[in-house]
Amino acid sequence: MATIGVLIDDMFEDVEYTSPVEAFKKAGYKIINIGLKEGKPVKGKKKGTLVKIDNAVKNVSVNDFDALLIPGGCSPDHLRSYKEPVDFVKDYFNTGKPLFAICHAPQILITAQLIEGRRITGWRSIIQDIKNAGAEFVNQPVVEDDNIISSRGPQDIPLFIKACLKRLESI
Amino acid sequence: MATIGVLIDDMFEDVEYTSPVEAFKKAGYKIINIGLKEGKPVKGKKKGTLVKIDNAVKNVSVNDFDALLIPGGCSPDHLRSYKEPVDFVKDYFNTGKPLFAICHAPQILITAQLIEGRRITGWRSIIQDIKNAGAEFVNQPVVEDDNIISSRGPQDIPLFIKACLKRLESI
Repeated sequence: MATIGVLIDDMFEDVEYTSPVEAFKKAGYKIINIGLKEGKPVKGKKKGTLVKIDNAVKNVSVNDFDALLIPGGCSPDHLRSYKEPVDFVKDYFNTGKPLFAICHAPQILITAQLIEGRRITGWRSIIQDIKNAGAEFVNQPVVEDDNIISSRGPQDIPLFIKACLKRLESI
Repeated sequence: MATIGVLIDDMFEDVEYTSPVEAFKKAGYKIINIGLKEGKPVKGKKKGTLVKIDNAVKNVSVNDFDALLIPGGCSPDHLRSYKEPVDFVKDYFNTGKPLFAICHAPQILITAQLIEGRRITGWRSIIQDIKNAGAEFVNQPVVEDDNIISSRGPQDIPLFIKACLKRLESI
């Protein structure tokens, strides 16, 4: 079965981690949490969910993963202030493998300069940033553009999971 | 003495509120906290500082203020997902009166589409957003461009306060 990397840091939007990860595990996929520091527990923003980082992003290879999930909250903004996660996302993205981005996740794609000319959605506060990055903001629950599957936020989770699982079945 | 509005919401960077506000009060300026809901206590991100919103942003006029401070943290991103604070910042900005922006504060200026062609600084995670908005990102502790005084984050607070106080003396 495929392995899904989850790129995450403190203050992630709890349900944008817990719900997709639960669904992916139930479907038999392996989850590897990647972040700034191996072994560090990172904490959710609203419910305080603790997630242990399995591997530091600087020590992983894009070849380790068949898909990448980036939950939202403040986590993407934290991550994008460091070089390693931004470089990893860039390298991963360029493989063309599926990238599942929800809520504030496009922030790290913007810093990595990856969304110009793409159709994408995300949390309403970052709409102008998405547009300024040269992407088309699409106000829909799920937007699929080549390897990017994106959703706006917690309200879209069921449809986001459905689209991600469908994509995972095809790889 | 002049009146300074402070535009703020939950998860603000504590010291980016407490330090400038303490200095401004000590210098004799009046502070009015404005936010989404009058009377609501908003909470700092790291130290849990509680700040009571004096006036809802929808009920204030740009004429009520001689200067505007926007602290960072997650507060600017929260605020910019609502129409009223974005409209207020736009209206205030167009008066040409001083705007003190630190850390993540440029996020709301980006959503209000106010920084194209301007020189500005801010927190390192939003550098690409600042550039994509058509502004020049300047990696300095304090950047003054016409009515905008901006700083990068907590490390710049002493110089930020000094520049803000100097500007307040001249109005």
